Amino acid sequence: MIKFNAALEKIIDSVEPIESESVRLTGALGRVLAEDIYSDTDIPGFDNSAMDGFAVRSSDTICASSDNAKVLEVIEDIKAGDIAKKTIDHNQAIRIMTGATIPKGADSVIMVEYTKKIQNKPRESIEVYKELAAGENIRKKAEDIKKGELIISRGTLLNCGHIGILASLGRPKIQVVRRPKIAILATGDELVGVGQRLAPGKVRSSNTYTLYSQIVKCGCIPKNLGIAKDIPSQLEKKIRRGFDCDIILTSGGVSVGEFDLVKDVLAKIGTKIKFWQVAMRPGKPLVFGNIGKILIFGLPGNPVSGMISFEVFVRPVLLKMTGQRQDRQIEIEAVLEEDIQKKKGMRYFLRARTRWQNGRYLSRLSGPQGSALLKPMSLANSLVILGESQVFFKKGSKVKVRFLD
Amino acid sequence: MIKFNAALEKIIDSVEPIESESVRLTGALGRVLAEDIYSDTDIPGFDNSAMDGFAVRSSDTICASSDNAKVLEVIEDIKAGDIAKKTIDHNQAIRIMTGATIPKGADSVIMVEYTKKIQNKPRESIEVYKELAAGENIRKKAEDIKKGELIISRGTLLNCGHIGILASLGRPKIQVVRRPKIAILATGDELVGVGQRLAPGKVRSSNTYTLYSQIVKCGCIPKNLGIAKDIPSQLEKKIRRGFDCDIILTSGGVSVGEFDLVKDVLAKIGTKIKFWQVAMRPGKPLVFGNIGKILIFGLPGNPVSGMISFEVFVRPVLLKMTGQRQDRQIEIEAVLEEDIQKKKGMRYFLRARTRWQNGRYLSRLSGPQGSALLKPMSLANSLVILGESQVFFKKGSKVKVRFLD
Repeated sequence: MIKFNAALEKIIDSVEPIESESVRLTGALGRVLAEDIYSDTDIPGFDNSAMDGFAVRSSDTICASSDNAKVLEVIEDIKAGDIAKKTIDHNQAIRIMTGATIPKGADSVIMVEYTKKIQNKPRESIEVYKELAAGENIRKKAEDIKKGELIISRGTLLNCGHIGILASLGRPKIQVVRRPKIAILATGDELVGVGQRLAPGKVRSSNTYTLYSQIVKCGCIPKNLGIAKDIPSQLEKKIRRGFDCDIILTSGGVSVGEFDLVKDVLAKIGTKIKFWQVAMRPGKPLVFGNIGKILIFGLPGNPVSGMISFEVFVRPVLLKMTGQRQDRQIEIEAVLEEDIQKKKGMRYFLRARTRWQNGRYLSRLSGPQGSALLKPMSLANSLVILGESQVFFKKGSKVKVRFLD
Repeated sequence: MIKFNAALEKIIDSVEPIESESVRLTGALGRVLAEDIYSDTDIPGFDNSAMDGFAVRSSDTICASSDNAKVLEVIEDIKAGDIAKKTIDHNQAIRIMTGATIPKGADSVIMVEYTKKIQNKPRESIEVYKELAAGENIRKKAEDIKKGELIISRGTLLNCGHIGILASLGRPKIQVVRRPKIAILATGDELVGVGQRLAPGKVRSSNTYTLYSQIVKCGCIPKNLGIAKDIPSQLEKKIRRGFDCDIILTSGGVSVGEFDLVKDVLAKIGTKIKFWQVAMRPGKPLVFGNIGKILIFGLPGNPVSGMISFEVFVRPVLLKMTGQRQDRQIEIEAVLEEDIQKKKGMRYFLRARTRWQNGRYLSRLSGPQGSALLKPMSLANSLVILGESQVFFKKGSKVKVRFLD
């Protein structure tokens, strides 16, 4: 039996990064960027108006106020997207819309709210009621992004803001890391498919569906290899159908029972087994190994054990495999709302509801903690993580918590 | 100008729930359940073994220990999925695998680790080294889910655990709420497509892509209506192409400028406009209305304003539209790491990086807060929310924070 941290280290050491592919920008959200993005342009590309109003010379507005209006002649109108033909001179203004290029001669923009049209003048004029500083209401060229700047680096998980930047930079396609492909094989004579009738002693293969969902949630591509009976030749044949994947997950058949054949079959087909059994609860009977670049997880058959193993072992694998920078914090601390007794030497991952209240997180178990009980798992929004050495955690103590959603 | 809370209330009041559809279980993750799920069976369906070992009568193990082995005869082997043919009598055992049905006559299971095979006996026998309590290592019928129980209720956002339960219950298809369809129309003469060359004064339509990504992230279906010039007939024609959607988002053209035509066009095509301009930053120039059941958001054209408006107004709409129970907390408190000065009467949503450190959240701004600056938006993992009345927030004060990812 191996300690949790040592197991995680052995797993991570076995991970090889995978290659990139080109995707359209509309499909890039949540993907890991596989290239450094430098800006080939300034953004904004030109000084432009932050307001709807009039481009003016600030020196023409000195001492302007509601009691002391300054009069300016409006010599042109420009919309966003247009360029003024004229240059502003002393006591002149150009009507300008948000985002439009600042005309030559102007150094500031007065909001339309601080102006008034003067009626019945031969040339269009406005009164101005506010003194402006040079630069006021102007967005300077390159104030968001400078030409040549490294603006999004390789390994970034792309969010909606990044997608907007890539659009602004004119990148309809970008290189991202390929989505890992993960095979799932449920094993055991007791299993039947979700649509089948239950004969006595049989159960439906829920693990196929929980693992499938977890894979989808991580942004990976699931490949369902179905259910294998406890027959070595059938196990082997079905596992081999996952050889086009980056990771193969088997479920069940890795305990100490005499029909737990998965370990033997994995070894027979050339899996370099790195460890079997981890000092954790749930999830103790885990086999991990690799066949070349393919990582093989022989997950325990109990529904919750398989889900937790995925959460704590497969997720970190995906970060390294896709080269994702780990700038997201996944663990916080919470105050326990009940006493918890545990076994020494084992790391516990308990299903819990954690909520923010009065400036801190509070955690309570979401139900009984049996590793076959899916209901408390479905009610949990988090895992309470209890270290190996301590055996008793009193109500009110602080514990590490990882959110599940 | 309307206060933020009043605006949100008017919006939510306008939302009508949408209908449901049938999906396969593999596509149900993250969908909102549209039916109450009652269990038509007990789970587990029968008493079964939690361990690999031997089913025994606990009374036969009284006082068993490593110094005082009890000898039992092994009368049958059963695998998971099998049913024993024999009934256990005094001093008998049946070899049993995890998950297999407990044989008649047995009331407990001894782990294989506490037993030893006896060699050279005419009938197979084991030594037992541990005293068992009745019920030990047995998972009782219905201990997870009882027949007839309401197990997942309508309005639940389905997580991986729920999917496992639905598989166990034999539900290959379920009713979920249809995914809302949301149209996006970017407006403005200054806009060009992401793949086009930038002429002077032009910018690329990044809002199309940020909004598209936000819609996808919420699990909705985006419909890109492209870019409309500031020409009423073109605006009208393109907006009408969104009439098959639940929500139409336009971007730009809702400010006070003379070319901000979107408001007028919306009114002309029959939009019942509920308000224009919200006392918030960014996002002040928002128009909201409806045409029958279709909700219309005239979003501000500044990239960050549009994104924040989506986050704080469209997301809550989706919760009500899909009938999702709101049991997820979205706001926590954090300690500000810098002084912030703001304008009275406006609610602020500031782009920030928030991290957990020493038992509390700390927030600092992710860059300058101009509403056109996408870089600080892309660097933010959260929004710091500052209420209307207060104008100065000192470093060290506690503020409300909403996470973006």
